[in-house]
Amino acid sequence: MSSKLTQEATAAAAAVSADRLWSTLMAMAEIGARPDGGVCRQALTVEDREARDLLIGWARGRGYGVSVDPAANLFVRRPGRRDVAPVLAGSHMDSQPAGGRFDGIYGVLAAFEALVALDEAGIETERPVDMVAWTNEEAGRFACGCTGSISWSGHAPLEDFLPVVGTDGVVLRDALEETLAAAPDVERIGLGSEVHAYIEPHIEQGPVLESKGLPIAAVTSIQGLRWFSVEVDGRAGHAGTTPMTGRKDAFQGALRAIEALNALMADDTDTVRFTVGRIEVEPNSPNTIPSLARFTVDFRHPEEAVLTALGDRVADVAAEAAAPCTVQVTQTSRMAPDAFPETMVALIEDAARSLDLGVIRLASGAFHDALFTAKACPTAMIFVPCRDGISHHPAEYAKPEDLAAGTRVLTACLVELANRI
Amino acid sequence: MSSKLTQEATAAAAAVSADRLWSTLMAMAEIGARPDGGVCRQALTVEDREARDLLIGWARGRGYGVSVDPAANLFVRRPGRRDVAPVLAGSHMDSQPAGGRFDGIYGVLAAFEALVALDEAGIETERPVDMVAWTNEEAGRFACGCTGSISWSGHAPLEDFLPVVGTDGVVLRDALEETLAAAPDVERIGLGSEVHAYIEPHIEQGPVLESKGLPIAAVTSIQGLRWFSVEVDGRAGHAGTTPMTGRKDAFQGALRAIEALNALMADDTDTVRFTVGRIEVEPNSPNTIPSLARFTVDFRHPEEAVLTALGDRVADVAAEAAAPCTVQVTQTSRMAPDAFPETMVALIEDAARSLDLGVIRLASGAFHDALFTAKACPTAMIFVPCRDGISHHPAEYAKPEDLAAGTRVLTACLVELANRI
Repeated sequence: MSSKLTQEATAAAAAVSADRLWSTLMAMAEIGARPDGGVCRQALTVEDREARDLLIGWARGRGYGVSVDPAANLFVRRPGRRDVAPVLAGSHMDSQPAGGRFDGIYGVLAAFEALVALDEAGIETERPVDMVAWTNEEAGRFACGCTGSISWSGHAPLEDFLPVVGTDGVVLRDALEETLAAAPDVERIGLGSEVHAYIEPHIEQGPVLESKGLPIAAVTSIQGLRWFSVEVDGRAGHAGTTPMTGRKDAFQGALRAIEALNALMADDTDTVRFTVGRIEVEPNSPNTIPSLARFTVDFRHPEEAVLTALGDRVADVAAEAAAPCTVQVTQTSRMAPDAFPETMVALIEDAARSLDLGVIRLASGAFHDALFTAKACPTAMIFVPCRDGISHHPAEYAKPEDLAAGTRVLTACLVELANRI
Repeated sequence: MSSKLTQEATAAAAAVSADRLWSTLMAMAEIGARPDGGVCRQALTVEDREARDLLIGWARGRGYGVSVDPAANLFVRRPGRRDVAPVLAGSHMDSQPAGGRFDGIYGVLAAFEALVALDEAGIETERPVDMVAWTNEEAGRFACGCTGSISWSGHAPLEDFLPVVGTDGVVLRDALEETLAAAPDVERIGLGSEVHAYIEPHIEQGPVLESKGLPIAAVTSIQGLRWFSVEVDGRAGHAGTTPMTGRKDAFQGALRAIEALNALMADDTDTVRFTVGRIEVEPNSPNTIPSLARFTVDFRHPEEAVLTALGDRVADVAAEAAAPCTVQVTQTSRMAPDAFPETMVALIEDAARSLDLGVIRLASGAFHDALFTAKACPTAMIFVPCRDGISHHPAEYAKPEDLAAGTRVLTACLVELANRI
């Protein structure tokens, strides 16, 4: 092993138990379990509250402090020798409606396992080491993703999100209140508590680590994104009687628009990410020409200049291609790309090497809560491989040994950060 | 006026009241009225039963006989001098979910107005003159369109349709029983009563008559159709992390398949009708690559040979274009084109000319109950113009004078047919 890690960091990493971590992951996967092996545990639902209760029980069983802020971000504290800003690790517990057993929840339970490993190794740290579970990262129920980390970091005020209506018609404000009321004995703290540094472990959600046979990536940056909602208006008509010439078929208009956007987004370097994930037509009847088509555009790139150049052309390109149908394009989200501090990236890279774990640097294709914590404190991410790069899907899978490797790197880094005063 | 019509036929046609016809149409349009001016009166619903009750009340007020068969086809009889097979006219009362005020119901109320005009003109006919309202032409609730006319004509047995489940989960068998039970005092008759001839008035559902400024079309034939359901299977993935190369995006696969079908169906003569009216993707989430896409194909042509040649290629063309996604194509309906007897077409053409109404011959782009009655008795159709060719839409509109013109032609033809023994 390299000499770069302190003895305490190395000992704590060694105390991480792959079996214990896996058993907590599998216990969580039972909450909201789907018959297809996946998980549906959307933000601020009954299942989310059940998952929180389970975690709070484990934390109290270990004697850790538990607190929650007004965004329902849940914190678990292993105190340090000094009452100073903690080092923080975690991720989110909510899943996509047809999600898997690792996205998000791995980061939360890796952080919890790090606290337990510190106990097992009998290590005291200078700073407290905290675990966090951020609220509503996925945006599957409430369209405002990363609600918890955005409001915690001050990127946008929590009040902005409170009126958002979920896919089930429930208002975010009410779902938050219900979740907070369900755990009345948890200490309430304010939003935006001071943090020394934040590390988020996560499955890669891509194929790179698996294809290279490596367990660890030190994440250098998160690509930016722009989301658009496109509405194409045409004219309904009878499928049997309306001549093809002169039709204003909204779905055919949408199809031409998407073909043109495919061409706009074509990229030999395969860096652009362009996805039409949702499409709906009206009246959606087999023998009626669609009068209206709506689709979403998810466009991502690591460079802000490219996000601007291509994203700004979406509306014109779609409108021109869909004519004679008319097109309305609304930008529903924009997140700038962000690079993590070199000191934090190097810390993870060095820790992995010291633990004899293969490591590369990688940019993140997905956004994460870390994109927003980076506004408030030094932030970094650790990726571990997932099978076939699949996530947001019941088939999502990661190997126990890879999950443990990421948790060892996390634990070592937390000790290093917590002892640097 | 031409000498071709008998004096009685001319007198009966003259007794048709545009105002009376319009007032019955507008009274019916209140049943299932939509806020946008359209109508939602789907087959065998509460609204359908209410419409039947209104019509039965009008019929009894005039002293006509009312009967219903096991398919809930509703008959109104104005007796003739002889107890022989009647001449029959009508259409359907059910609408699309976002339908208009004229499609179907016009044919029923034109036939009813013809009976009333015979009363007003004091004309006795040799044969009875019957009005019919066929059950479930539209297929909006129960996917088996023309249920009433198909089972009446013996084209397929009613038993085949009884297990069909509606969009609201109700089984056709139960909806039929409920409808029949709601009018217990109506005489029950068997399916397939003998009929001398059938005429169906209908709005054109196309732009030809309006563009030519003519009130009447003698319909020569109904084009055939083939319906397909296409399922494209791909692989879900995260929109931000999955490289574009190697994706199996089911929606992009469907898009390529539809582009290829557009090319297959391209037709300089503008005779082919090709519509993708319904499309759905899964999981239909903005940031997840679609794993599955389903769409419908509605393909129509007046020539059976073309229906066979192009329709038989749909599966292969879609599969080739959608690769590497996999494609399953299922034919959900096939109706052969049909031509009406020349004697019936000429009767309508001659009657219109005799009444000084401009008339052309026209093929029907839509199918109608007449496509099936044609298997059982000499059949014809009368088209009247509708605004902008629009139907299956709340904006559907036809002028009172055009509706009355079609009813005059119908009335004259019914008298001619009813007196030819």
